Amino acid sequence: MMIEELSVGTAVTPTEDVAMLRALELAGSADFRRRGGNPRVGCVVLAPDGTTIAEGYHRGAGTAHAEAVALAVAGDRARGSTVVVTLEPCAHRGRTGPCADAVVAAGVRRVIFAQPDPNPVASGGAERLRSAGVDVIVGHRTDEAVALNPDWTFAQRTGRPRVRLKIASTLDGRVAAADGSSRWITSAEAREDGHRLRALADAVLVGTGTVLADDPLLTVRIPGPEAYEQPLRAVFGTTPIAASAAIHSTGSSAEPPILLGTRSPSAALAHLRREGVSSVLIEGGPRTAAAFLSAGLVDEVVSYLAPVLLGAGPAAVGDLGITTIGSALRGEITDLRSLGSGPQLCVRIVTRLITREQDDVHRNH
Amino acid sequence: MMIEELSVGTAVTPTEDVAMLRALELAGSADFRRRGGNPRVGCVVLAPDGTTIAEGYHRGAGTAHAEAVALAVAGDRARGSTVVVTLEPCAHRGRTGPCADAVVAAGVRRVIFAQPDPNPVASGGAERLRSAGVDVIVGHRTDEAVALNPDWTFAQRTGRPRVRLKIASTLDGRVAAADGSSRWITSAEAREDGHRLRALADAVLVGTGTVLADDPLLTVRIPGPEAYEQPLRAVFGTTPIAASAAIHSTGSSAEPPILLGTRSPSAALAHLRREGVSSVLIEGGPRTAAAFLSAGLVDEVVSYLAPVLLGAGPAAVGDLGITTIGSALRGEITDLRSLGSGPQLCVRIVTRLITREQDDVHRNH
Repeated sequence: MMIEELSVGTAVTPTEDVAMLRALELAGSADFRRRGGNPRVGCVVLAPDGTTIAEGYHRGAGTAHAEAVALAVAGDRARGSTVVVTLEPCAHRGRTGPCADAVVAAGVRRVIFAQPDPNPVASGGAERLRSAGVDVIVGHRTDEAVALNPDWTFAQRTGRPRVRLKIASTLDGRVAAADGSSRWITSAEAREDGHRLRALADAVLVGTGTVLADDPLLTVRIPGPEAYEQPLRAVFGTTPIAASAAIHSTGSSAEPPILLGTRSPSAALAHLRREGVSSVLIEGGPRTAAAFLSAGLVDEVVSYLAPVLLGAGPAAVGDLGITTIGSALRGEITDLRSLGSGPQLCVRIVTRLITREQDDVHRNH
Repeated sequence: MMIEELSVGTAVTPTEDVAMLRALELAGSADFRRRGGNPRVGCVVLAPDGTTIAEGYHRGAGTAHAEAVALAVAGDRARGSTVVVTLEPCAHRGRTGPCADAVVAAGVRRVIFAQPDPNPVASGGAERLRSAGVDVIVGHRTDEAVALNPDWTFAQRTGRPRVRLKIASTLDGRVAAADGSSRWITSAEAREDGHRLRALADAVLVGTGTVLADDPLLTVRIPGPEAYEQPLRAVFGTTPIAASAAIHSTGSSAEPPILLGTRSPSAALAHLRREGVSSVLIEGGPRTAAAFLSAGLVDEVVSYLAPVLLGAGPAAVGDLGITTIGSALRGEITDLRSLGSGPQLCVRIVTRLITREQDDVHRNH
């Protein structure tokens, strides 16, 4: 279903526009829980005279949808009202009933939503509303709504989590010295940025080789009062991991790790998707990076570069089966920044790779 | 001799300051020839009433010094005048007589210069002038004068050329694919920037391995009307090079290459210093880079990074004998920029390394 077919116009009033800005703000509320894989959604209910009757937002999987929260507050006053919501009301029965039906049942006259539901199972809300005689406006401030849930939107569209690969290397491309030592290649600022990257991911993934070699904890550790959720920790590969490995520790409110028990990147991502994961951060090692890159399943590379030279030691990415420069994987740099200052200054480069899945998505749209 | 000992004050008049700015401007004249290793110098001669009597600047090795040019123009009017010059007048007899003696002989009353001569052979001019009764002012706008000749100043102080190492690699640290192919790892903009880097160097150096593998021309090729001198081309190592190698070509007004015939980085730099070379750009390969790095003879690394992944192929720097992270060579990033745009965007990182020579210089000052 194309956006163009659903649109009957984007003629929203200034009052409705302000309500959408408020709904976007509500969707960004701090007490949202990402775990479970639901999107951030905000909703405002307006009376026929434009006054706000009710507000609501979704707090995460297992809690009421934003429209349900707002309609419950509105009660009988919802009759004849306008519902302004950041995401298309759902048409499917999940853990809660279809929001589109609840909107119709409440006697709502008009619905304005920002982002069409990219999920083929949940979409259809607009059609259901229209067929019940509700006036539907689609696509107002869509980009801002998508920006609330970029990874969720990606996962809904492609059916798999968005995958980022983190690399921390020297100027000559080494991720560790010849003896395997790698601590403090980059600066404190770069490491803290790396922990923020973890905090933005639903899951952090390493190969069994990295668990055996580095024994990482893989939790988010950011100094100060910043609030964050611990991502799931996933181990890729089939080599057994000792029960004494640090990754089994469940301090810092981290959940037990997921031992994926597979060498298939797509099977690993499908497993994580079933756990509600929309974004995965791969933190090594070279074989795991190579497996996901070869499968066309890495969307973004985040490279931290330190002003260090080693002359020996492993590179970030293992064999991809590429033998000549014409077959190299290529991407586009989307962000460049320095972290820290003076001798501690490191560089961060974000590169968007063109993956096969994204090519498919382009063809399908 | 310390600057502090020579200084009797920096009380220059506004007219003398303007004359120094003009001398700095003259020193930057376009028809200066860098080949031969002489510094840029500008000179202005002021009458006792502050009017400009004469100007002059040095055009390069084998031509008259700036003071000699200006004094020749001034003739008898130099008697009782003030000479404003960007570099300390020399006290040694080289291809021309000592400028300090010429200044005294011309009856100059007062000399203001910006940069003390860092060359232990050429310095002593200020003392000679003072002992002849000339009023000498030292150190006015020294930084601006040093900036005219940064590599020359470095070479005079340390006795060897300043050495830059150029690296062009993928995000995973590969400078070529497994089959050795490396063309177009970086973008056209990055390659053009690399040619500008060549144009800034007195000599470009590669190892025999790179000559045999890549058969480079090593000339500066910049599209458009930009003026530049071709650097000397030097080959490091003892493996014989075929007479048919591209590096023997003397098109684009390039001189025949210097086959250094040594595996010693310090011997190679001494050879190039005797050719008047103040700055060397090393363009590969991994063994040559490693030889100079291991000898503590690389001052700066210029890294070009492209949004490309290869998973296999050589790294930029060969074995340095470093086995653990604590022994890594470290530096400080002094410049970070992007080159090009869109899918062609590459990153350039300049890193200043702390070399043994620089440590020595710090101790001696």
